[in-house]
Amino acid sequence: MTYSVAVSGASGYAGGEILRLLADHPEFEVRTVTAHSNAGQSLVAVQPHLRSYTHLTLRETNAETLAGHDLVFLALPHGTSGAVAAELSADTLVIDCGADHRLESSEAWASFYGGEHHGAWAYGVPELPRLSGTQRERLTGARRIAAPGCNASTVALSLAPGIRAGVIEDVDLVSVLAVGPSGAGKSLRTNLLASEILGSANPYAVGGTHRHIPEIQQALRWAGAAAPTISFTPVLVPMSRGILATSAARIVPGTDAATVRAAWEDAYAGELFVQLLPEGQFPRTADVQGANTALIGLAIDEAAGRVVVVAAVDNLVKGTAGAAIQSANIALGLAESTGLPLNGVAP
Amino acid sequence: MTYSVAVSGASGYAGGEILRLLADHPEFEVRTVTAHSNAGQSLVAVQPHLRSYTHLTLRETNAETLAGHDLVFLALPHGTSGAVAAELSADTLVIDCGADHRLESSEAWASFYGGEHHGAWAYGVPELPRLSGTQRERLTGARRIAAPGCNASTVALSLAPGIRAGVIEDVDLVSVLAVGPSGAGKSLRTNLLASEILGSANPYAVGGTHRHIPEIQQALRWAGAAAPTISFTPVLVPMSRGILATSAARIVPGTDAATVRAAWEDAYAGELFVQLLPEGQFPRTADVQGANTALIGLAIDEAAGRVVVVAAVDNLVKGTAGAAIQSANIALGLAESTGLPLNGVAP
Amino acid sequence: MTYSVAVSGASGYAGGEILRLLADHPEFEVRTVTAHSNAGQSLVAVQPHLRSYTHLTLRETNAETLAGHDLVFLALPHGTSGAVAAELSADTLVIDCGADHRLESSEAWASFYGGEHHGAWAYGVPELPRLSGTQRERLTGARRIAAPGCNASTVALSLAPGIRAGVIEDVDLVSVLAVGPSGAGKSLRTNLLASEILGSANPYAVGGTHRHIPEIQQALRWAGAAAPTISFTPVLVPMSRGILATSAARIVPGTDAATVRAAWEDAYAGELFVQLLPEGQFPRTADVQGANTALIGLAIDEAAGRVVVVAAVDNLVKGTAGAAIQSANIALGLAESTGLPLNGVAP
Amino acid sequence: MTYSVAVSGASGYAGGEILRLLADHPEFEVRTVTAHSNAGQSLVAVQPHLRSYTHLTLRETNAETLAGHDLVFLALPHGTSGAVAAELSADTLVIDCGADHRLESSEAWASFYGGEHHGAWAYGVPELPRLSGTQRERLTGARRIAAPGCNASTVALSLAPGIRAGVIEDVDLVSVLAVGPSGAGKSLRTNLLASEILGSANPYAVGGTHRHIPEIQQALRWAGAAAPTISFTPVLVPMSRGILATSAARIVPGTDAATVRAAWEDAYAGELFVQLLPEGQFPRTADVQGANTALIGLAIDEAAGRVVVVAAVDNLVKGTAGAAIQSANIALGLAESTGLPLNGVAP
Repeated sequence: MTYSVAVSGASGYAGGEILRLLADHPEFEVRTVTAHSNAGQSLVAVQPHLRSYTHLTLRETNAETLAGHDLVFLALPHGTSGAVAAELSADTLVIDCGADHRLESSEAWASFYGGEHHGAWAYGVPELPRLSGTQRERLTGARRIAAPGCNASTVALSLAPGIRAGVIEDVDLVSVLAVGPSGAGKSLRTNLLASEILGSANPYAVGGTHRHIPEIQQALRWAGAAAPTISFTPVLVPMSRGILATSAARIVPGTDAATVRAAWEDAYAGELFVQLLPEGQFPRTADVQGANTALIGLAIDEAAGRVVVVAAVDNLVKGTAGAAIQSANIALGLAESTGLPLNGVAP
Repeated sequence: MTYSVAVSGASGYAGGEILRLLADHPEFEVRTVTAHSNAGQSLVAVQPHLRSYTHLTLRETNAETLAGHDLVFLALPHGTSGAVAAELSADTLVIDCGADHRLESSEAWASFYGGEHHGAWAYGVPELPRLSGTQRERLTGARRIAAPGCNASTVALSLAPGIRAGVIEDVDLVSVLAVGPSGAGKSLRTNLLASEILGSANPYAVGGTHRHIPEIQQALRWAGAAAPTISFTPVLVPMSRGILATSAARIVPGTDAATVRAAWEDAYAGELFVQLLPEGQFPRTADVQGANTALIGLAIDEAAGRVVVVAAVDNLVKGTAGAAIQSANIALGLAESTGLPLNGVAP
Repeated sequence: MTYSVAVSGASGYAGGEILRLLADHPEFEVRTVTAHSNAGQSLVAVQPHLRSYTHLTLRETNAETLAGHDLVFLALPHGTSGAVAAELSADTLVIDCGADHRLESSEAWASFYGGEHHGAWAYGVPELPRLSGTQRERLTGARRIAAPGCNASTVALSLAPGIRAGVIEDVDLVSVLAVGPSGAGKSLRTNLLASEILGSANPYAVGGTHRHIPEIQQALRWAGAAAPTISFTPVLVPMSRGILATSAARIVPGTDAATVRAAWEDAYAGELFVQLLPEGQFPRTADVQGANTALIGLAIDEAAGRVVVVAAVDNLVKGTAGAAIQSANIALGLAESTGLPLNGVAP
Repeated sequence: MTYSVAVSGASGYAGGEILRLLADHPEFEVRTVTAHSNAGQSLVAVQPHLRSYTHLTLRETNAETLAGHDLVFLALPHGTSGAVAAELSADTLVIDCGADHRLESSEAWASFYGGEHHGAWAYGVPELPRLSGTQRERLTGARRIAAPGCNASTVALSLAPGIRAGVIEDVDLVSVLAVGPSGAGKSLRTNLLASEILGSANPYAVGGTHRHIPEIQQALRWAGAAAPTISFTPVLVPMSRGILATSAARIVPGTDAATVRAAWEDAYAGELFVQLLPEGQFPRTADVQGANTALIGLAIDEAAGRVVVVAAVDNLVKGTAGAAIQSANIALGLAESTGLPLNGVAP
């Protein structure tokens, strides 16, 4: 069966990546692409790398153009998808790549985003636990799915296994991320200019202000944390895409190294898209570039009393568009890996 | 007065940077440059950016060629400077840019480097405390100086003020560094190839194995720490030079934000080359590229209970060659900033 | 039908890219991977981005390990594939990604490569003309194929249509290429270190010494040139992969702009993997990253009397591994685009 | 004597670079910095790398704030400096870093820029010839100086010696440039975003439309060309600053290699800031990063009948701010190299 698909925000980076991946998806057929200021242009004029879509023209983003598809991807600015989604049929599978439907807590939403809270949808990281069960279970058959924040899901995948297994403490976590600027979208901001980023490492949202923090905490609570605390610092580095998250967590006293490592081994033993590397190996972002794969390396620093977890993710794929399509596959009962690349484009 | 200078390891990155800075130093005159495999070539054939030195030819590195100068910079592979230095006159000011003379602890040397330990020289980071006094005091009049490890000094400058002032705990520190590959020198290693590093973030020495850890701990003990522990992870990112160190330290319970911040303000109030940025501002490595300046930004994350200190340093300047020259200025009684650039080459 | 495949040089960049592409090829199954110094290691330890191949171990490169497959890819250092190929069965489809079998002229081989000349195989750029016919025709049913040089095929695709149509002169051509370092392979050379290439543009082989020049001339002779001459200069720039070739050719006097443009339109009208962009549009290498697509933009500079052709190619895909697989598809009678990506990984 | 200085456009890249260089100039003292939208802020808040200027606040750009200085640098958007300059005293040395006063030809101005033409000032590339004499002569004592376009001066320096000496033809020249995005300033344009430029080579102004073409032609006419024609193509590459210009010119038939090379040797024999490299050596942009140096390499391609000239320049230094200060030194009778860096910041 072929599902008809509409992609909104198709002129942006997330929308473009959804389209790139869908070109190789055997069950999904892109019928409609929409945009805001670029509506009326041919898609390939705005996204010249998407040669599969020379036949498509960008239309206005609104409920009318998006209606009538089996599957709608929303890749819109934060705060704008709630209204659009509300007008789409309940039978339509709607996947929101924005933040609007990720947080269960209205307080966290108000504190970090502000504006009206539209409630939480099924969370698009199937490999994460969800209290008594998994995210994957809740995604099955879902018709409303929130794709994750790229930084949030990378850190959650790094730390959830240790918390679920009780081998690391769930407070005083520390994560520092090297991230590429494509995660910030095509926004015209001075600090995203090439001249500002080439040859430089630039921190931002230092000191606990990043909007992905409550999303991380929510995922860690699903893993069993009571009241997780985390020091989280992203650093922009000169690569277009990619997240390398280095997370250090205090080992629960008395836990031996093998038991610590086993927590991650067990969590991801059956997973295709989240893989734990052998001892002594650590991932590079190039290894997952363009791929729906999260690679994780783990080291135990006995002197420091911490486990160090290094995770590499392509923010636009496993961090956004790939997570969205993987979740859609689950929701619709398709093989979970359908149409999704496993191998990175390296070097 | 003009001091005669010899620079060994002049064909490498550290040696080249010493020469670049010395070209603008009014009191130092480079008479001799030496190298290993490149001996016999003109300096500018190997270091084509150093147009001030078209008259110099690389000579063999040995005690004979280095003798007879007022000042000798050793930019040699780790483990090789001790023997050379032993043959130089006690009156000669010798500055070792390698690791050989940084560590006071023979055990730490044996554990992280191995081989014969040559003992510790005056440590070339004048802004750091040294028990009852400062490094600057010990550098005055010194004739043997160890330039710091670039990562080590960046982290030490980030954390020492808080420890000295008693506002942060001296254990369970966490530092993650984005670093450029020039810190690894011109070594022909696959993981340093451009194809491996462009477009990627690559961790290394994960889990407490990096050789700069004991050097950091030594500096923190000088600041008053009893038995400091730190989780330290460097990440190679695609910029030729620069270190952005993000360090998170637990605030001593009951310390208010103003008191925390005051520790760094007080420590660096009179310093030219280590500057604390105003609240809410954080440094980028481009801001210090080519300069002998360390810029520090600081945020207090009350939810996480940690202060986050972000420091930007050019590994080849304030991290190595600039620190060496600044220390030489002090040792010889010159104005400390003589010949040293303060402004970064940005963008 | 499934064809069994062996890939030699599997630890290098070209070999790795062949494997990345083959992972999505429905008719080819990789059974054997070989290497030189890395033989005995698991493939994924050396190529950690190739998660599809966790079951494969690198074997020694020799005729025994390569024998018995339907299809053998040789991604070996120049000058070494001839001997290996000679030992493989004439029925086996052998595709050489090295230079050994590209040049028909023994003199050109001797002048630019030296050593024994093994003669020319079918040339793996199906879109290029070949005297009275096309390369595609000669590739059909072939059992020995030479994949092209990446720079050479990019320039040949840029200029051949104008020469074939008689709208540009075939002498005094000028091409300048911005190229990523992956084209040089994993060689441990100082000029390929990240520190040397980050933040810099570095020319090499200036003044007509690059080995791809005779290969370009050969392709232009196939297009009808009598004695083509070209000034060819490659410039290494800080991107891991990609070629942007800017070629300027003198327009045959009296030819109007529409006629010039029509030469390229006609040449590539039916092609999937070589596309001429609309007037006023020019390609970026990011648009073809990871894809088997060559994008070409064309402008007529009447004041200068030249047509400027800008072509973007991923050196590892359309420039090497993709060309090899596309040619294999043709040789075996498969649909030409089988398993090959059309869309670039951008941004 | 100390000259008082005002810098307008101080929040941009060119203005920032003027300030960086002036910090080391012993005769110039920056009293006033002005900006447009950033007026009222402290300079160092906008240009955090300029630690020498923590005492300065940005003022409004207008004739009143700029009046009363010995020396005024205008680093303003094209088309806006003419009006400001007209209000400044004829005794004030005014250096325009914009294009407004570079072109002598009103027709060329109208054709490539449009709007009112303000006439040509002394041209700030002292090393170039100027009909019967040099630019340097005209700069001596001048009070109105046009700093050059960065691409234009790089190409002019590459080709003028061959034309002046009559060893290359002055028509059918071809130049292709790898350039960093800082040359385009801090403009908020999508094609200047880091995500667009990282990992990619992006051509622009293809086919003879770039505004620096008439400026190149003017310089070549000063060198003796009658009606020079040039195919000129710039390519944005992922480095923040730098120009690598590859220019190919037809050798006048019958001219031997030594005579060709001698033209450049003679032209730059006495120059400090424009240096011809030895035979077989070619410059990299890193070699001149941050320096006021143009490095030139030259190769003769006999098969192609062309000389290939490769020139490396830092667009913000020798291409703009350094050229401006070097010209100011000449105008005021100071030593030409006062305050200007000769060595590049590499790696």
